[in-house]
Order: sequence, then C-alpha cells, then structure tokens
Amino acid sequence: MSDHRFPYTDAVRVVATALDEDLGRRSLDVTTFATIPASQECIGHIVARADGVVAGIPAITLVIEAVAERIGAVSPTVEFHATDGMRVRRGDRIATIEGSTHATLVAERTILNIICRTSGIATHTRRWADELEGTKALVLDTRKTTPGLRALEKYAVRCGGGTNKRMGLYDVAMIKDNHKLAAGGLTAAYEAVRTAYPEVTIQVEVTTTAEALESVRAGARFLLCDNMSVELLGETVAAVRALEEELGEAVELEATGGLTLEVAAAYAATGVDFMSVGGLTHSSPILDLALDLDSD
Amino acid sequence: MSDHRFPYTDAVRVVATALDEDLGRRSLDVTTFATIPASQECIGHIVARADGVVAGIPAITLVIEAVAERIGAVSPTVEFHATDGMRVRRGDRIATIEGSTHATLVAERTILNIICRTSGIATHTRRWADELEGTKALVLDTRKTTPGLRALEKYAVRCGGGTNKRMGLYDVAMIKDNHKLAAGGLTAAYEAVRTAYPEVTIQVEVTTTAEALESVRAGARFLLCDNMSVELLGETVAAVRALEEELGEAVELEATGGLTLEVAAAYAATGVDFMSVGGLTHSSPILDLALDLDSD
Amino acid sequence: MSDHRFPYTDAVRVVATALDEDLGRRSLDVTTFATIPASQECIGHIVARADGVVAGIPAITLVIEAVAERIGAVSPTVEFHATDGMRVRRGDRIATIEGSTHATLVAERTILNIICRTSGIATHTRRWADELEGTKALVLDTRKTTPGLRALEKYAVRCGGGTNKRMGLYDVAMIKDNHKLAAGGLTAAYEAVRTAYPEVTIQVEVTTTAEALESVRAGARFLLCDNMSVELLGETVAAVRALEEELGEAVELEATGGLTLEVAAAYAATGVDFMSVGGLTHSSPILDLALDLDSD
Amino acid sequence: MSDHRFPYTDAVRVVATALDEDLGRRSLDVTTFATIPASQECIGHIVARADGVVAGIPAITLVIEAVAERIGAVSPTVEFHATDGMRVRRGDRIATIEGSTHATLVAERTILNIICRTSGIATHTRRWADELEGTKALVLDTRKTTPGLRALEKYAVRCGGGTNKRMGLYDVAMIKDNHKLAAGGLTAAYEAVRTAYPEVTIQVEVTTTAEALESVRAGARFLLCDNMSVELLGETVAAVRALEEELGEAVELEATGGLTLEVAAAYAATGVDFMSVGGLTHSSPILDLALDLDSD
Amino acid sequence: MSDHRFPYTDAVRVVATALDEDLGRRSLDVTTFATIPASQECIGHIVARADGVVAGIPAITLVIEAVAERIGAVSPTVEFHATDGMRVRRGDRIATIEGSTHATLVAERTILNIICRTSGIATHTRRWADELEGTKALVLDTRKTTPGLRALEKYAVRCGGGTNKRMGLYDVAMIKDNHKLAAGGLTAAYEAVRTAYPEVTIQVEVTTTAEALESVRAGARFLLCDNMSVELLGETVAAVRALEEELGEAVELEATGGLTLEVAAAYAATGVDFMSVGGLTHSSPILDLALDLDSD
Amino acid sequence: MSDHRFPYTDAVRVVATALDEDLGRRSLDVTTFATIPASQECIGHIVARADGVVAGIPAITLVIEAVAERIGAVSPTVEFHATDGMRVRRGDRIATIEGSTHATLVAERTILNIICRTSGIATHTRRWADELEGTKALVLDTRKTTPGLRALEKYAVRCGGGTNKRMGLYDVAMIKDNHKLAAGGLTAAYEAVRTAYPEVTIQVEVTTTAEALESVRAGARFLLCDNMSVELLGETVAAVRALEEELGEAVELEATGGLTLEVAAAYAATGVDFMSVGGLTHSSPILDLALDLDSD
Repeated sequence: MSDHRFPYTDAVRVVATALDEDLGRRSLDVTTFATIPASQECIGHIVARADGVVAGIPAITLVIEAVAERIGAVSPTVEFHATDGMRVRRGDRIATIEGSTHATLVAERTILNIICRTSGIATHTRRWADELEGTKALVLDTRKTTPGLRALEKYAVRCGGGTNKRMGLYDVAMIKDNHKLAAGGLTAAYEAVRTAYPEVTIQVEVTTTAEALESVRAGARFLLCDNMSVELLGETVAAVRALEEELGEAVELEATGGLTLEVAAAYAATGVDFMSVGGLTHSSPILDLALDLDSD
Repeated sequence: MSDHRFPYTDAVRVVATALDEDLGRRSLDVTTFATIPASQECIGHIVARADGVVAGIPAITLVIEAVAERIGAVSPTVEFHATDGMRVRRGDRIATIEGSTHATLVAERTILNIICRTSGIATHTRRWADELEGTKALVLDTRKTTPGLRALEKYAVRCGGGTNKRMGLYDVAMIKDNHKLAAGGLTAAYEAVRTAYPEVTIQVEVTTTAEALESVRAGARFLLCDNMSVELLGETVAAVRALEEELGEAVELEATGGLTLEVAAAYAATGVDFMSVGGLTHSSPILDLALDLDSD
Repeated sequence: MSDHRFPYTDAVRVVATALDEDLGRRSLDVTTFATIPASQECIGHIVARADGVVAGIPAITLVIEAVAERIGAVSPTVEFHATDGMRVRRGDRIATIEGSTHATLVAERTILNIICRTSGIATHTRRWADELEGTKALVLDTRKTTPGLRALEKYAVRCGGGTNKRMGLYDVAMIKDNHKLAAGGLTAAYEAVRTAYPEVTIQVEVTTTAEALESVRAGARFLLCDNMSVELLGETVAAVRALEEELGEAVELEATGGLTLEVAAAYAATGVDFMSVGGLTHSSPILDLALDLDSD
Repeated sequence: MSDHRFPYTDAVRVVATALDEDLGRRSLDVTTFATIPASQECIGHIVARADGVVAGIPAITLVIEAVAERIGAVSPTVEFHATDGMRVRRGDRIATIEGSTHATLVAERTILNIICRTSGIATHTRRWADELEGTKALVLDTRKTTPGLRALEKYAVRCGGGTNKRMGLYDVAMIKDNHKLAAGGLTAAYEAVRTAYPEVTIQVEVTTTAEALESVRAGARFLLCDNMSVELLGETVAAVRALEEELGEAVELEATGGLTLEVAAAYAATGVDFMSVGGLTHSSPILDLALDLDSD
Repeated sequence: MSDHRFPYTDAVRVVATALDEDLGRRSLDVTTFATIPASQECIGHIVARADGVVAGIPAITLVIEAVAERIGAVSPTVEFHATDGMRVRRGDRIATIEGSTHATLVAERTILNIICRTSGIATHTRRWADELEGTKALVLDTRKTTPGLRALEKYAVRCGGGTNKRMGLYDVAMIKDNHKLAAGGLTAAYEAVRTAYPEVTIQVEVTTTAEALESVRAGARFLLCDNMSVELLGETVAAVRALEEELGEAVELEATGGLTLEVAAAYAATGVDFMSVGGLTHSSPILDLALDLDSD
Repeated sequence: MSDHRFPYTDAVRVVATALDEDLGRRSLDVTTFATIPASQECIGHIVARADGVVAGIPAITLVIEAVAERIGAVSPTVEFHATDGMRVRRGDRIATIEGSTHATLVAERTILNIICRTSGIATHTRRWADELEGTKALVLDTRKTTPGLRALEKYAVRCGGGTNKRMGLYDVAMIKDNHKLAAGGLTAAYEAVRTAYPEVTIQVEVTTTAEALESVRAGARFLLCDNMSVELLGETVAAVRALEEELGEAVELEATGGLTLEVAAAYAATGVDFMSVGGLTHSSPILDLALDLDSD
C-alpha cells in the first residue's frame, strides 16, 4: 500500500529551513556548546505526553543527521518503537536517540516542532476516520495547508486514516461559480477543461440537486456538494445515484462546508463518498510529545 | 518603533515555496486557465469573517506579484484598508485586489493560507496582551514555531501586542538542568557561557527560590521560572526584588509552563516581567478571512 | 497607484548576493570586529550629497536586517525621512539608522551601492519627465538593464516619473526586421504572433511612414518608430493619427534611437505617446548619498 | 600572469539571473518563437560601435550555451577575434556566432547587457592606466561595485590595466576614524586587528602627515591618504619615504578622494604607489557593442 | 545498527540534479509523451542481470516520486523484494514498480544510473569483506569519491560490509609529511592539531616503524601505514602492539597503498585493524541491473 | 570547432558540491589549518602517473579559486602544460599551481577526484577512436552517465575523440518497442513524434533488417541497430544503403549492445556510421594523476 510513503524530498527541505532558523548562519547553540563537552554522550527518548496517533517520525533521523553534520558531531543512532500511523498512549516511548549530547540537544526543538504538528494532524484525522468507520464515507483533506508543509501534512492525514484530495491547482480541476460564469455555464466549463487538459480529473462544485444532475449529464463523475444541509445532501445523493444507474457509470460525491465531528455520522448516512475537512490541516492542535534524557 | 517591520526576506521564501506546492512545476491552474480568458479582470476583497487582529497583509502583494510573474499576467494592484496589528470586525474589508482574474484566483488560496495563520496568531496574542493590560507583565513567544515560518510567526506575535524572546539557539543562552549538570553547577555553567560568548544575553531556568537567588548572585539578570505555582512564583519574585535592591541592578523574571488565560491575571499579580506561552505559535486557531469577488 | 510598489522579492535576492560579495563566506568585517565592541551602538544618517530623486530606500532596512542576522547582532531600527520618488536636496537626511555599530558599519557600503544606483536612475529619469512635462509624451525604459537588477532599475524609473516598457522577451512581442523577413513580411509576422500568443501586446518596429501604416492595417496598435528624424516622425504620427480616426481605434507610437534631453521637446512636439531611452538604465550616473555617524 | 582569469563561477550565476529576467519562467521569446522556424540558422557578429577595450567576452559563450539549453536548441558555435584586455576600434569584429537563429536572437540582449558594461569599465580603466604610464602609480578599484557583479567588474578593471584592491570587508583590514576612536587610538586599533586576524593585510586611513608617520611606527605598511591636496600628499609621501629608509622596510601609499584624469599626473608625481577611483566601477559609461546578423 | 541508514538528504539532491540533466528545463520525454497515452499503466521489475550486492534501492522511490511530480502523473507504487546490503543473484527481482507508464519510463535511466553504481560499489566492497572474513582487519573507503556522490558511495561501502573513514577534511585530522615539515616535526604537528581542534580524531601517516613508535609516543592512537611491504607492516604492527601494552592504551593501525584482493590476506595476517582501498569508490564496475516491463 | 568547449556552468556546480562534501559547512581542513602557517606558499605540479588523454583540466582553476575564496586565501596561479584532448605520458606535468599552501592542499583531492575521472573517460574513448581510425564509424556515448556529471562526462568523451549522442530524453526522440506497441506500430509511433515535436531528430531502434527498412520508409533517417550480430548488421546496413539510393536521402545507422574493443573493427567493417558504448561513461577506470609539491 503506497499511502504511507514518507515524503523525504519535502522533509529534507523543511528540516534544513528549520535548522537555519534555530541555529543561525553559524550553527551555534551558545548554551550547549559552552557548557557541555563535545565528547559527552546521552540516551534520550521521544515520549508521548498524551494519547494520539504518530506521524512523521522518520523526520527524527533526518534532523539528527543534519544537526550532526552541521555541528561536526558523529550522528547519534535512532531506534524506533512505533511507526507512523500507530496509536500511542501517554507515556509510550516512540523512539530512542543514543549518542552525542550536543547533537541531541540541538536537534530537540526542531524534531518536536515537526512531529508534534504532524502527529496532531494524524490524531485529529483519526478521530474523523473512527467516527466514519462503518459508513461508506472517507475523510478528505483540502488545500488549506501550512505554507511549506503541504506534502508532510497530507502525509499526516494519510497516517490518520484520511484520504488526500488534489495536491494543488495543477493536478485536479475544480469547477466553481467563477469558472461557470466565465465559460458560459457549467456544461461549457466542463467541456473547456476536458478539452484543454484531457488527462486531469474534473470535479464540479454544486449547491443544488439540479446542478448536480446537470454536472453528471455534462460528463462529470466527481461532485463537490458545498454547504448543503443534511436533507438537501440526502436528496442530491439519491438523485445522483438514480442517474448513475441510468447511465451505468459511477459518480463520486463529496460533502464539504462547516462539517464537524458532531454531525459527521448524519452526513455520512446520506451515502456520500467523501467528507472534506479543512481543519485537519489548518486547525489541528499539536500532539504533545517530548524528549526525555536518561539520567545516569 | 521597529517592532512592526514585516520580515520580507522570509516572506518571499515562504511565498515561493507555497506557490511551488500549489501550482506545481508548470505553474498551472487547470480549471482557471481552461475556463476564464486571460484578459478578464476582476475586483476582489479580502474580508474578515470573524473579529480579530490582522497580521501579515503585506504578503498579499508578494503573492499577487509572484503569481503574476509566474503565469505571465500583469500584476493586479492591491489597496489596503487595514494595517498589521489593527483590530478588524467580521465583515470588514482588509484589502482590495484589482486586475487579472487569473492572477487573483491563482493567488487566493496561498494568500489565505498565510494571512489566516498569521492573523490567528495575532488575534490569540492580542487576547493575552489585553488580559495583561495594566499589569507589568508582557506576553512572550517561544521557539515552538512552525518549521519555516518562525520569522513570520514572531512578527505576528508582535502585531498582537506580544514580545519576542530569542530567535533561536544562537542568539540568547538559556541554561537548563542538563547544562548545569554538565558544567558542574549553575554558577559554573553561567561562567562558562559568559566566557565563551561574552556578547549574548544569558537566561537561567530555575524552579525554586533558592536557585533563583543563586543565579542572580552568579551574575544572571534574566530568570526563567519554570512551572512554578502562583505562590512559589510570588515568593521568588519578592526574594529576587529584595536582592535586586541590595545589588542595585535590575533582574528580569519570566514565568512559563502551562499558563492559560484563566490564570494569567493571578500570575501577573506576582510582579513577573514576562509570561511565555508556546501556544501562541503552535496552537492558535486561524482567523477566518476570505476573498470575495465583486459580481458585475 | 501601483506604480511605486517596491520589488521586495528581487531586492531580497540582490541584498543577499551583495552581502556574500562583501562579507565572504564567514560574514567577517575584520576591521570592525577587531576594534569595536559588539555592544557599541550608534546613530547614523543616510544623507544626500547632491540634489536628486531617491529610489530604493526600503532596501536600507533589508540590508540592515540581513546584516544583523548574519553577524548575530540585534537589528538597528531605521526611520525614514523621505519616500521613494521624492526630490531631495544636498544635505537632506533620507533615513536614520539607530543601533548596533557593527551592523551599521557592515551594512554601509552595500546600502550605498544599491541606493546610489537606483536613486541615480530616478534622478536621471526625473530630468526626462520634467522635460516632457506638458507634452503628451511619456519617457520609457528599455531592456538595457544591469544583469540581476532589472526589477529594481525599472522600479527606479517609475520613481523618477518614467514608465516601464516590457519586462522581457516573454511578456510583450516586438516585431523587428528579422522577424518580418523570416515570417514573409510584416503582416504575416503580426498574424503569426497574434495566433501563437493571443494574449500578448504586440509592438511593431517601423522606420518609414508606409511601414507604420501597413502595421496598423495589419492590426498593430503599438508602433516603435526607430531612429526617425523629427520631420519623418512628425509625418508618421500625423499619418497614423489620420488612419486612427478612419479605423476608430487608438494607436500608440513610441520613438526611440539616439534621443537626448536636448532634442526631447522637439520629438515630443510631434505628438508621439512615448520616448524610450536606454541610457536611463545603462548609463545614469549614481546619486551621491552617504552615511554620516553622529559623534557623541 | 593570473590577472586575466575570467571569473567563471560568478559569470555563470550572473548569466542565469539575467536570463531569468529576460525570458521569464517559461523561457519564452514570444516574437521570435512565433515568427522564425526553429531550424533556421544565422551568422552574427559582435562588433564594436566605438573605440575601447573589451572585457568579459567569454560570457558570450556562457550566454549562448545557457540559452540553447533553456530553449532546447543546439548551441551555436562562437569564434573569437579578440581577447579580453585588447583594444578595439569602431567597426572591429569581436566574435562571430554561428548556428540557431532562435538561440542567437534570444541571447543578444543578455550578452550585450553584460559585455557592454564590463568593456565600458575596461575602457575607462585603460584611460587611467595610460595616463599613469611612466609613473610609479597604479590605478586601483574600490568596493563601490554593482551588487552582484563585483567579481566581473573587478576582472574588467584588470583587463583595463588596473589593479584590484580588497575584494570585501573580509580579506583586508582598513582602519578608519570610527575604528581608531573605538579602539582608543590608531596604534591600539592597529594592534587589535593584528592580534585578532594575524594573516590579513592592514591598511590605515590617514589625513595628515603626522598620522601617516604614527601609522607606520605602529607597524602599518599600507596607508590610505584620504582627500589630501597634491601638496599635502607630496609632503606625506616624502616623510614616509624617509621613515621607510630609517626602518629598512617598504611602505605602500594609496591616494584617494575625488581624483580625476585631469589631476592624475600631478598626484602621481608625488610618488604614491596607488590611486583608487570609485568611478571605475560605479560610473563608467558602457562601451557600445552590437550584434549584426549577416544577410543572406 | 545505524550503519545502513540511507542518506536521504544527499539522495534527494542527486535525484533532482540527475532529472534536470535527463529531462531538461521543460521536463520532457519527447518519445514517450508523443506515443504513449498519459493514462496508460504498466508493471515493471528492477532485476539483477548479474550476481552482486544491492545498495541504494530507496532511491527508486525517490526517483519515481520526483518524476511523477515533475510530469504531473500519479506516482506509481514501489514494492521491494530486497533490502540494501542483500546479496542477489542474476535474475532476482529487486523491486516492482506499478502505475503510470509515463512515470516509469521517464524514471528508468535515472534509477539505473544511481543504483547500478551504488550496487557496484557494494558488490566490490563485499568481495573485500569476504576476503577479510575471519581476520581482524576491516576494509575502509577513502576520500576518492565521485564529486557529488560521497554520502551515497560511502553508504554503499557500508552496505557491502565496509567501514567508512573520515567524511572529509573537516572531521578527522590526517597528518602527512607536509604537515610534519611545516610544524617542525611529527610531535609538534600532533600537538598543534590537538590544541587547535581538541575534539577531532587524529591519524598520523607513517612509513617506518620508528615513525610509528614516535607517533604513538606523541599521543597518536590511529596510524596510517602508507605503502609498506608486508614484512615492514608486520614488524611495525608488532612494535606498536608491544608499545600499546607498555602504555596500557589501544592503538589502531591502517594499511594503505596499492592493496589488491590478491595480497589482502597476507596484509591482514600482520594484525592491522584496517585496510583502505581507494578503488572501492573510484573504480568499482557497475552492477548490471535493468528494468523489465510485464507484457500484457 | 565547438567540440572542445568546457562546460563551465556544470563544472562550477560540481566543484561547489564537491567542496561542500570535503570541507563541511565551516570550510575546514583541520590538519592543514593547525599545522601550516596561512602565509606559506608552495609550488605544486599535477603530473600523470600513467599514459592517457587528459580532459577537464580547466576544472583545476575553478577548484583552486573556489577554495581560495572559501578559506579566505589569495588564489594561487595555475599554469597549464597540456590542453584537454592531449595525450600525456607517465611523468608528464599537466599543470603547475603556485601560491598559498593552504589553498593548494585543500584543493588537491577535489581536483583529482574530478580530473582523474574525466581523463579516464577521455583515455578510454581514445582507445575506441584509435581502433575505429580509418573506418567510417564514430564512437558514441549514451545516457548511462554518473548522476550530476553528464555534461562533464560527455565533454570528456569529446576530448577522447568520441561523439555525443542525445543529452537527454528531451532533445532527441528514440522510439523503442514500448513506444511502437502503444502507438500501434512503428510507423504510427514515428508519425506521432513527428507531429508532436516537429523539431527533434528521431531515432528508431530496430532489431531486424525488415524493421530497419520499415523505419526508413516511415521517414526515419537515424536507426539504432540493437544487439545485432556482425552478420545481421552487415545485411541490414547493405539493405538500408540500397534503399538510401532509391530514396536519394541519407540514413545514419548506429550499432549498440555489448560492443567491445575486440569486435570493434569487425562491426565497423559493416559500414555503420556510429557505435555506441555505455561503458565510456559508466565503467572507465580513472586515469592516475597526482599532485607533487616541490621541496625547497
């Protein structure tokens, strides 16, 4: 299953930028370098301070190795006790770092700034995935991601049991009102995109049942039902399913707009395929993780 | 006052990365390019959908201009109706964008992903600053920032009435237990840093009144009172103030550890100079801002 | 008015490169670091040593902040007494820098190397704009810019009251003899560009009245009258204006080739819309600006 | 002789930036691509339109090859008829480019923007070198260079018969008044630099004969005589030469400040070793070079 | 065990550069894009065409994902049938790629150019490790690596059972004749390095038994026996071991210079700890690996 | 002749990466900096330790100058005694470096790692070119190059008397079985590429005489005869030559697949135009070159 592949290319860039921020141009930790001998070694554990789902822990190794190279230390080893997507409980050890104290302390904050965020997203997504368990609906993310962290955050969504929607404006078309208006109607817009970019998936945003049916007749097989009440959504799904049968072709429906965990089950019961939640990436609280050093 | 200088260097980098993520290598918005003529122009308004404090709005121009260059459009103009640090109310217009529809729509999500986040931080910080109004205490941020966004987030804290602590490990020393242990005690650690990096400010983390007094006698003029109860903090502040008088030199005290708005006033009443809150940067909810296009 | 927007993205790159050149890989000013304590502060003023028009002064802040970060100093504050596009007289203060002496001295030469050049261009352009005041003609720049400084130099032209022509080969077509020849004539060339790049403005270079008229009949609405005498230009403008009336569509004419301030008025009197002057960007003398430190 | 080594590393960067500016992100020349077949070939000559000294012509090949790669053309060949540092007369051919018309036309402006500037500097410098011919004095450049072009401009100075002073703040110390003041006097400043950076050359700026002598006694072997009249300079040189003899060690003197070609000979007659002229790099007019295509 | 950690940071850079080379600025495979529909999928296998040891196979995923992003395809999945360091036989499948034919074919050559080289190094190193099996000696690499590939090649050495020597000039000192001469003898050189860089390991190059003993007495605990005959090496090892006992401290000896597999056992029999072989990285033949597509 | 132009743009990048690898972030050679005074100078010679053909020697200057700048030394001069493509014999001096010992020693390994490899490729290619001397066949390289070194390695092939095939997937089409199958046959594939990319050269891979003839009839003028026996190749060449005459158009044939120097003459005798050899770039042994310092 390819879902859990960690985005190394992006993570390498994020780690480099974060270390530039924290160490400055001269790669200094003025406190540690002045007080602790370069030869000192330690054992540290990344531990959970709350229950949740971890995501992004390969970044621990990337940070440790990048720090070691920057400060001229031998890179500590990292042993993992959990893998991305795994549920952890408060007190669980997630990884053990062993080696240069300098490298370990310098890396600490950068590691945590990354994995607390990605694990927070996975934890939040997991709650949605659990809530939708047993229904047909899958939880989707959106483009409302932190600048620079999109690949990592979408990966975290996958670790939490969510599904990724488009990566950006370039890989999937999403026809909204402005596009319909400019193109001279929904059908014209659909055809314009189909012709210009034959390979991309096209999704049409709809707000009424009639519009949903028109979209499907125009050729669309992926609808975004925006801001519909449960009732309207139910009606629309039913109407589209009927048309599906008539056409002999599958259509996917996604609900979006102000969805919360409280109403998730009700919306899922309409039979939609997907529910998208911007808050997965823009408003998940971090998962509290910390580094504990063994005392001698 | 220099506090409000927008960090252009960092913002330029963040915008470039965010556009790479959203437009891909070929700078495509497949929907917009297929349906809307390149010559179409529009007027759009960035509006507040909730009350709050705005921060980061110079980024609107940076995104618009970078998008225009990438897609080969004439850059729309941007007119501002608010400035960073200003309180806005739901419905207020913050900026007006006028020009190429292509550029405006392609820029929309990237603009919002940046300014909703920075404005969210400013709004959250403002709540702390308002709560501490009339006391001596200022609210501080920490190093718990989003990787790649530290300069922007610390700027947003300033816009919300907060104060920045150190930028990273390189510019201010913070002596914690590991450093004291390795150096052979608090005083030895203080002296080691003083000697190795004579120019940096040194802060010492303390958990008891005794340790606070020892730090000041060792030469420290900046203390971090970690995880103290209101009572213990009160005692410590009083003891340090007495010593201050004796020495004829000012000492600054910062409280940290699990501080919430509910207890803010009580902690401030102890007479501390600063209260640091990691959540300003790692857990502020976004401020809901949106782009509304004028209909013709 | 959008004309005066400072090109931050380009300026950030230019500042970084200039500091690499001046400070080397280790960010050293061997003289200053050896002789002046890092804690020393100073007040310095950027002052005009000649009359002129300033441009590029937001770069002062960018340099100061970048230097401060590179050498690990607290960034001095910058207060402005002038804004870009403003006329200054010998002796006027343009900005005041207050803070770290290290940062101020290290930044000095890089600040001046940038703003003396951009202000020189603005000053030179202002002379042209003043000369053309009261005529219909606007002064235009060209692509004859300093490698790496195009955006800054074109901005400086705007600050001096000039107007920018195309940014590069990619955003406006300019049909010259080689293109006409290869395409099989002026009209064929015009149509080839119109078809291949429907969105771009097309300018046709002409050297005779006949060619000017042929261009307009082919569809061109923007002509470049190259190296014409005042008389020939007068005739051509008149003929085109007559055809304009006939067609009911506006045509813009630009004169170029060896134009000097001495003949500017005569050329403007022909009724051309634009006069382009390569020397604005490739041969403007610098405006003499300097940094004066307050003595104690 | 190593003086004439072309700075390839910097030139490659400059060319890349200049092409980004001129071709945009999609590497387009909308006019040429629409009107001229990709298979067309041409022969073009870089010719001098004025007398002067050429510098920077290896950049022709760098631009041509970079353009060819960007637009997917086979790179034209470049044959040189002159080498850097050579005097050329109006009408002389400097190089011949043969191959893809697309590549040749796209490269034209970028080539000229670089070599007209560097050749302008070489031509200006040559005038100084010729003027000083037969005297002991050499002409020096300064740090007043165009941001991003320092290595190329200093190379052009060498091509014109000039000599380079320090590359930046990092490789040679130059003790000015601020440094003397902060260090507690000239001698203290000299010793502070000597101790902190034992390997660098130290130059001391002086404005009186007494200061010159004090500098030499403090150990300085390189003096900058700032803004001295011819008479004062003559006196100072004489006094230093006498002290030289006494010490048995050579001292070098450089005159600077408002030097012009008119007074060059008089200043040289004082016996100074160097005369530095900021205008070589900040105010040289370009040398007029052009690309002429062979007609069939 | 940390030995097998794949260097993702370096690999990401290498992949990006290799794709720039192979796809050009516009990310084109002109043959594939013109003849194969973008929607076509395939199954391909990376297979061994010779016996050997594989190294670098995580690069397969990095290339596939980077290609997919560049050409706008959904990334194929990669399933691994071997792990780095594993012996494979001719015909063995190493990995299976499933998905977009475009992405698979475009990635093919870049994948093979990387993993054939790294696996070649691992295979060559394995032969040395096998030959030294049962002796005390370990095989070491050197700094004779391919520019840009050092981290990947040193990783491949580890995968083949070899051990890495220093990463560069910066992390371990190696005192050779030039250093001894300049410092005034072996002991003086040793002490100079010890003082200037107290944290680095110091190795001393020796060519005689006497020099080896002098080095150890000076404090060295790591010797490089350069170009010694088996006999001389045997003597030197014996003498150093005797001194070791006397001092009660361990010393490591490395033999180098013209070592071949034929003489490996004889050299190992002298009791050296390490044998370094430049050819591991500069002259290993590639391991023949290929991509086979399933036919339908 | 343009063949021997050194690829400066790529070489500059390769040198920078190689120095990053060898010197680390702080540009340190811990041994040299601790033991040798910065002011010491030396004379060193790059000498051949084996017979061969040199390639890439302009890189010596690039490395020396880049090192000098990184470590803050005056750049040594480099004098060349050979030029790229020249045969050298064991003991010949190739270049002399004179100046800073620090710069020379720090540059040594990076210089050798580059030029030993490029010269190895030139030497290997020369053997092929000599073997094919007097026949019609030229030796070609392939895309089997070292990641990051393609331009340098293809340049080295030219220095050895070889000819470059396509630079990548973007500049020449090569129709293989997968493309024929997907497009619906050889002719359809040829036409698809012809239409989509009218400007690129198209080569068709064939394995039988019949396929070769079909390709030519479809319009192909460049064939790749893959893995044919000498006999089959002879037949195919003869049949194509007959068809050539009939059509009155030239066709070029390239043989590939398992070619060795032993069979080179036999294959050349068939009358093919080109023989391509992947091993030129993926398996050439290095040419042994070294740096010898003059002793005083």
